[in-house]
Amino acid sequence: MSRTLNSTPRLDGFRMPGEFEAKKGCWLGWPERSDVWRNGGKPAQKIWVNICTAIAQSEPVTVCASAQQYENARAMLPENIRVVEMSTNDAWFRDSGCAFVVNDRGDVRGTDWTFNAYGGLDGGLYFPWDKDDKIAQKMLELEGLDRYRSPLIAEMGGIQCDGQGTILTTEQCLLNKNRNAHLGKEKVEELLCDYLGAEKVIWLPRGCKFDETDGHIDDLACWVAPGELLLQWTDDETDPQYEIYQEAFKILSNTTDAQGRKIIIHKLPQPAALEWTNEEAAGLDAVVGTHERLAGTKICASYINYYIGNSVVVVPSYDDPMDKPAQEILQKVFPNHQVISINNAREILLGGGNVACITQPQYAGPAQ
Amino acid sequence: MSRTLNSTPRLDGFRMPGEFEAKKGCWLGWPERSDVWRNGGKPAQKIWVNICTAIAQSEPVTVCASAQQYENARAMLPENIRVVEMSTNDAWFRDSGCAFVVNDRGDVRGTDWTFNAYGGLDGGLYFPWDKDDKIAQKMLELEGLDRYRSPLIAEMGGIQCDGQGTILTTEQCLLNKNRNAHLGKEKVEELLCDYLGAEKVIWLPRGCKFDETDGHIDDLACWVAPGELLLQWTDDETDPQYEIYQEAFKILSNTTDAQGRKIIIHKLPQPAALEWTNEEAAGLDAVVGTHERLAGTKICASYINYYIGNSVVVVPSYDDPMDKPAQEILQKVFPNHQVISINNAREILLGGGNVACITQPQYAGPAQ
Repeated sequence: MSRTLNSTPRLDGFRMPGEFEAKKGCWLGWPERSDVWRNGGKPAQKIWVNICTAIAQSEPVTVCASAQQYENARAMLPENIRVVEMSTNDAWFRDSGCAFVVNDRGDVRGTDWTFNAYGGLDGGLYFPWDKDDKIAQKMLELEGLDRYRSPLIAEMGGIQCDGQGTILTTEQCLLNKNRNAHLGKEKVEELLCDYLGAEKVIWLPRGCKFDETDGHIDDLACWVAPGELLLQWTDDETDPQYEIYQEAFKILSNTTDAQGRKIIIHKLPQPAALEWTNEEAAGLDAVVGTHERLAGTKICASYINYYIGNSVVVVPSYDDPMDKPAQEILQKVFPNHQVISINNAREILLGGGNVACITQPQYAGPAQ
Repeated sequence: MSRTLNSTPRLDGFRMPGEFEAKKGCWLGWPERSDVWRNGGKPAQKIWVNICTAIAQSEPVTVCASAQQYENARAMLPENIRVVEMSTNDAWFRDSGCAFVVNDRGDVRGTDWTFNAYGGLDGGLYFPWDKDDKIAQKMLELEGLDRYRSPLIAEMGGIQCDGQGTILTTEQCLLNKNRNAHLGKEKVEELLCDYLGAEKVIWLPRGCKFDETDGHIDDLACWVAPGELLLQWTDDETDPQYEIYQEAFKILSNTTDAQGRKIIIHKLPQPAALEWTNEEAAGLDAVVGTHERLAGTKICASYINYYIGNSVVVVPSYDDPMDKPAQEILQKVFPNHQVISINNAREILLGGGNVACITQPQYAGPAQ
């Protein structure tokens, strides 16, 4: 039974874990729409299968595919991956899916944020987004887990939790006038803490440049342990992201987390930004209301945008000189995980995000 | 994980239980199509909710609703009923859903029959039926249970298992040229026993008159225990069903089940057949390929078409003088179950079936 609760996770003693905590499974959608995914989604689906297969080594994977794509997804994916039917507007389950929260007794529930496709009618990436705003509820219904519905317009790609009371996010995203500007910073902080069971919000002014989501944190920085962050980095002062990284570093170096700890920052080198080729752009359907990607459009690439499972770290690679150094750093940060590199992750990034953006971890809750 | 197996339940030591055996849950669809369900399905949906609510007293209920009807089904159904998204052609899960089979260790798998909407292009009730033929696979995928795919064109509404090796069915249905006539009786028997883990098939020549399904057994007779049957009945020699009941009685009285037992037959009085009114017929959309129901069209009604759960028997009632006597007999036959009468079940029957037709029990398997 999945009840819709009128209280909040914080009131009920639930919290969003850090993404390095124990998982029961992982949820993904399935790329299909031909105005977002080039060549009818075929190149992206191939990489999707590789990502799902890598994660399934670590925990059970559920892929939600539309009625039209169900048979194809079932045929392309290995048998150990569960395929369920679900109608969606697009496939960014980190953002449209529910945020699982846990309590100390091992109970699991979910926060269902209001979703508006990254800005609604004011710069959103596609229209409509009615089906995506139902995904969280459908996931919780499938699992028989209780649901909190948050009035905040938010995507989990824009929010990083350390699992011990600290939230890291950007003003560019959550305080954007196309999200929650009308509520004011204080009220947004309160709702974030209420619906994620946290105590403190660390604000960065902005996310990476060439990020279509209005500055999602999951291309810029992420917790790897309580009190410990990875931060995307370049030492090239001429790079368009340089100032953004400097700004973030300064703020993160001069604050403490909810537990009063100074934060350890690991720098992770950045790959070059992606630039749409003529051939790639020609593979998209033109649809009014969908964010336009022309030849030459840039999208920010990142190694921060990985998925961490119970035993694997699945990280995009871009045929970039930084692929290897980044993987080596990740392996050092997570010595007990197998780092799996996903070749040609460019095909996912062309859609506007990467491995983190398409995955939603279902937390197991602490062992009872 | 749901694997598709190349063997058969019989080979692997699995059998279909009798429907009086322990259940883990019950599956239903959701009525919606306006060429089958009058007034856009609204009257049927109301009764559907009552049926689901009654069954949910006994075991967990899952309702599979289309993307279009998901929100409405979720709003109409009580919170303790799970609603999952699934595209279907119509809502007869007894027939389109999978037949759950169990082994002695408590493992559960499913048989996925080939489905052709009760006769395909030769007298079938609707076109197309592609989505309905996927329902069984989707159910098993959701549950992570292994699947057998049977080449036999069959619906479980046309088949009755006693759980101890005996199958009861009709020639009119399974040997119909619009189902499996081309295979021959012997091969059909073999496939039935292979995919249901049985040893003996008892054939009745035909099912009830005014039954749109080509003689489904689930309006005529059903096992209530091994060696014990309920048989629909009338003593009125002028009734169009009279001869059919006599014929069935004679055959069932002169045979033995797979265990060599003579069969005890309980007679259950029949309600009057339904006849479509002008007003009801006016509430249907006209669609080429859908079985036509005009004012005056008759559909056979039955109390045999009940659902038996772990603790309840949910039986249709028709505002018929036989409602009460039939319920009293059922209560005697199942003294440990609560008999729940569903008022205005006519709204389900107008679609072409009743409580048994819209429900698919998921067996628990014997306790380990």
